[in-house]
Amino acid sequence: MTAAIIDGKAFAEELRARVADAVPGFAAAAGRAPGLAVVLVGEDPASSVYVRSKGKATTAAGMLSLEHRLPASATENELLEVVRLLNADPQVDGILVQLPLPAHIDEAAVIAAIDPAKDVDGFHVVNAGKLAVGDRSGMVPCTPLGCLMLLKEQRGDLSGLDAVVIGRSNIVGKPMAQLLLAESCTVTIAHSRTRALSDVVRRADIVVAAVGRPEMVKGSWLREGAVVIDVGINRVAGAEPGKTRLVGDVDFADAMGHVGAITPVPGGVGPMTIAVLLRNTLVAAHLRQGLPVPEGI
Amino acid sequence: MTAAIIDGKAFAEELRARVADAVPGFAAAAGRAPGLAVVLVGEDPASSVYVRSKGKATTAAGMLSLEHRLPASATENELLEVVRLLNADPQVDGILVQLPLPAHIDEAAVIAAIDPAKDVDGFHVVNAGKLAVGDRSGMVPCTPLGCLMLLKEQRGDLSGLDAVVIGRSNIVGKPMAQLLLAESCTVTIAHSRTRALSDVVRRADIVVAAVGRPEMVKGSWLREGAVVIDVGINRVAGAEPGKTRLVGDVDFADAMGHVGAITPVPGGVGPMTIAVLLRNTLVAAHLRQGLPVPEGI
Repeated sequence: MTAAIIDGKAFAEELRARVADAVPGFAAAAGRAPGLAVVLVGEDPASSVYVRSKGKATTAAGMLSLEHRLPASATENELLEVVRLLNADPQVDGILVQLPLPAHIDEAAVIAAIDPAKDVDGFHVVNAGKLAVGDRSGMVPCTPLGCLMLLKEQRGDLSGLDAVVIGRSNIVGKPMAQLLLAESCTVTIAHSRTRALSDVVRRADIVVAAVGRPEMVKGSWLREGAVVIDVGINRVAGAEPGKTRLVGDVDFADAMGHVGAITPVPGGVGPMTIAVLLRNTLVAAHLRQGLPVPEGI
Repeated sequence: MTAAIIDGKAFAEELRARVADAVPGFAAAAGRAPGLAVVLVGEDPASSVYVRSKGKATTAAGMLSLEHRLPASATENELLEVVRLLNADPQVDGILVQLPLPAHIDEAAVIAAIDPAKDVDGFHVVNAGKLAVGDRSGMVPCTPLGCLMLLKEQRGDLSGLDAVVIGRSNIVGKPMAQLLLAESCTVTIAHSRTRALSDVVRRADIVVAAVGRPEMVKGSWLREGAVVIDVGINRVAGAEPGKTRLVGDVDFADAMGHVGAITPVPGGVGPMTIAVLLRNTLVAAHLRQGLPVPEGI
């Protein structure tokens, strides 16, 4: 049996196109484009690359992109003041503070300062709470929502399926479990303290791996025909000296002989995150303007 | 093997005594007793009984008890006005709006209006969100927190244990799963759409049943030595005609031959709920006054 490879890159492009198609309608109704502000503190090279990609994707979708860059020495109060200005700025629908922040800044305090209606990352406790209680008016974190979209694209109705989420972070694992529960999966959350993880994984129709440990999940752990979503992006030594390559949390080549479908790394979940960020910004813009959210995004 | 019966009534009495013991210290520091306000709309007999019990337990613990009763015909705005007054009342640390509310009132809107710092039921989205992201400054719903206390009393450290929660309500199932995850259990949430529920239950060291279906969980479903917390309170026909009796979601007599420990119905989880409500009120009072929360409650 050969597994289907879930093409996250292609699906992300389709989602971005759907978002871009909906922008003119919003602009006509609201008299302005949707706006996304990204705040970067310091010069971390990886974060700089992410912020640049986000900015490009935002303008490519026809949205307004604002970038605020603060030096690594910026104080928490300086950052909070930027957040307050963006909260008050009517042309800004989404605010994303690029994480991680320098150690002297309290991330939780910064996230708490973002207007929940503009929290397109879905990290504010109000949005986490809405997700937990099933209130669909909240913003949902981009990566797990992207994973869910890929799962539904692949499997259709997920109701009654056994799902295992490996990892319990606030950014991926916990919201992923909430989303799968809302789809009426029987959901198990596994993590570093889980005993016999291979047995837990083996009974799952759906496996979402989000632990950040290269190729930890082996093919033999996976049930025949399972759908596997690999959130891990781990850099490891490559075949040639001095070269590196990216691998997921699942041993991809090993898994291919067992599963029904799997996301590759790279090209699986990764591209979905920015696409969902644009989607969340478009949704936030409609909600803020009191406009109905377009179907199918 | 005979199972241990977890005496929730006795543990609840101990908790109430610990809360009562801490009240004079609070009163000395704050210049007032902790205060709990309970709001009842309409004349539902069961709700009236609950409200009366809560009031008695509150004063028995040395706290101030306020009761607001509105007619069943009260409008949502009238109820919201009561909530606003209680939010602003400095002697009120906890506000509990007795559910269910009459059909013409939007429960979610009423819960959203309660100051999260006074939301001793833990139902506000801010408190649900804090529980979801692991922020311990929030209020945790009384019934699942009471279940967790009984589990820890019985089993000590829960880390690495397999736990199954049957039921996914916002009031019990979902917060229970969050609490068990925070204790580093491997947590599975099962519900009406779960396939092969008996198999799911059979692999669990800890079973929390919160579905409201009389004696649904059979003894043969339970792993040898499991600890079972039965949240269900179901009234069924009794042995004599015209008589009724209370049973849980677990077939208690059947389970006794399999499990390591189990809560009875009545006398298990039930008495814990009011005790935790008093505990939450005491905690809210300390947090509102900027006083350190006493150890061991």
